[in-house]
Amino acid sequence: MTDTLLSSASREVALGFERPFVVIGERINPTGRKLLAAEMKAGNFARVETDAAAQVAAGAHMLDVNAGIPLADEPGILAEAIRRVQAVTDVPLSIDSSVVEALEAGLAVYQGKPLLNSVTGEEEVLERVLPLVKRHACAVVAISNDETGISEDIDVRFAVAKKIVERAADYGIPATDVVVDPLVMPVGAINNAGRQAMKLIGRLRRELKVNTTCGASNISFGLPNRNGLNAAFLTMAAGAGMTSAITNPLHAEVMAAVRGADVMLGHDPDCRRWMEAYREQAPVVVGRERRRGSRRRARA
Amino acid sequence: MTDTLLSSASREVALGFERPFVVIGERINPTGRKLLAAEMKAGNFARVETDAAAQVAAGAHMLDVNAGIPLADEPGILAEAIRRVQAVTDVPLSIDSSVVEALEAGLAVYQGKPLLNSVTGEEEVLERVLPLVKRHACAVVAISNDETGISEDIDVRFAVAKKIVERAADYGIPATDVVVDPLVMPVGAINNAGRQAMKLIGRLRRELKVNTTCGASNISFGLPNRNGLNAAFLTMAAGAGMTSAITNPLHAEVMAAVRGADVMLGHDPDCRRWMEAYREQAPVVVGRERRRGSRRRARA
Repeated sequence: MTDTLLSSASREVALGFERPFVVIGERINPTGRKLLAAEMKAGNFARVETDAAAQVAAGAHMLDVNAGIPLADEPGILAEAIRRVQAVTDVPLSIDSSVVEALEAGLAVYQGKPLLNSVTGEEEVLERVLPLVKRHACAVVAISNDETGISEDIDVRFAVAKKIVERAADYGIPATDVVVDPLVMPVGAINNAGRQAMKLIGRLRRELKVNTTCGASNISFGLPNRNGLNAAFLTMAAGAGMTSAITNPLHAEVMAAVRGADVMLGHDPDCRRWMEAYREQAPVVVGRERRRGSRRRARA
Repeated sequence: MTDTLLSSASREVALGFERPFVVIGERINPTGRKLLAAEMKAGNFARVETDAAAQVAAGAHMLDVNAGIPLADEPGILAEAIRRVQAVTDVPLSIDSSVVEALEAGLAVYQGKPLLNSVTGEEEVLERVLPLVKRHACAVVAISNDETGISEDIDVRFAVAKKIVERAADYGIPATDVVVDPLVMPVGAINNAGRQAMKLIGRLRRELKVNTTCGASNISFGLPNRNGLNAAFLTMAAGAGMTSAITNPLHAEVMAAVRGADVMLGHDPDCRRWMEAYREQAPVVVGRERRRGSRRRARA
């Protein structure tokens, strides 16, 4: 049983090895969005609400909410953003901040069982965040870096993830409530980043038996046709064992990659969700399988 | 060393575990193409030539040539099609027929080392096709079905593939010249077909250490948004170890999936081929990795 259960006031979502891939919408994040940052800082959450609704309409199963704005009251803004998002959607949320006080403020107002994003392997962070996770009985994203930064050696990153899972256990937090982020590096900078990620995801699943997530868009940073590359990453990562990702559901290629991965892994019974999503698109005629099919029959 | 070397008169292509994924264009196939069938039967190969050029221009590394036309002189038509295609392109070809005489006619005119498509595990077929493969020192596609048809049990399909590789060895044909087709079934009919294919591809690579190919478009038969599903299959299959596929390079999603898989597997040094293919497309702005990046740096 590897399911990580998350919930809002009225809906539950499970991350799991035999569950459909979970898309966590990344859009509610002021980083790199000057206008959104200014609006959130001014107490205007209209765009936060429309971004939330749009991502859910596009197929997001959860939403990440981040309020990292320089020189702003991040705890207060994050708490209000979470209130507003929970008022307009019923998907579970990921409370996203590197400021512990902001995580606390978000947890204080959240209705349901959220995904706290995140804890790292840094001692100070472990000691401040894990008690929060235990007290609020939520799940947490465990990022596999520590005081030494991000290692390019996946054995080191695996060891950091293992340490976080063990430390969580010391606090009485089950491994099913720890969702490991293997840290996806831009393949444009580290040519081996994709391969590293696939190997680490596989080990995390087989050896630590934990659910995984990541900031998937990192992989394509600085490269053209980012959606195409993000789609390839998501599909291959799902095949390697990744069970969720923080990404952009507004990109059709991204949702097709995730839905296609579910079909390939047998996580879309009778391809019902695939057909529901794409029924408008008439099948393309491709001759090959007919010939092969008839050939099989002819010989069998 | 798992490379399968194929060639035309002037160009060599290698299938291998550490090589870029090889796309074998599927279009030159009269099955389901009435007009093309009529033209080929009438000795008009203009469309064959333009289809060949178009697939190579779209990124195909090899081309499959099939002349399976009912009540026609398949050996003669296949031989002429191969002559014409070799005259207008320099990529290696897959000589595709279920009629041994047609395979012989194609081999007789082919310049270079082709991929013979195909042999099955059926005794009569093994005994007729393997001597041809040995005599012409070519490579062969080994389809994992036998007299009993196609098993839904991947252990049975693996056993058939193993038998073909062993029988080939008896004829002095190295395993590097046997490219196994695990047989991809439509996921719309067999919900577990994708998962089965991934498992079988992984076993063929780890245990038989052979290169693999397949009629990739089969996977999406009867479903909407076939290109999206074919792309998901190709990306995940490449991640599982598949090294080539007979598919349609004219579909942008298919080529993006294959190129993306190469990037993910570290088979596209410095992402040069990806950038070359998509440099016209401006990078999409996604904020997340910047925040994550800065967060990492801030803490490291």
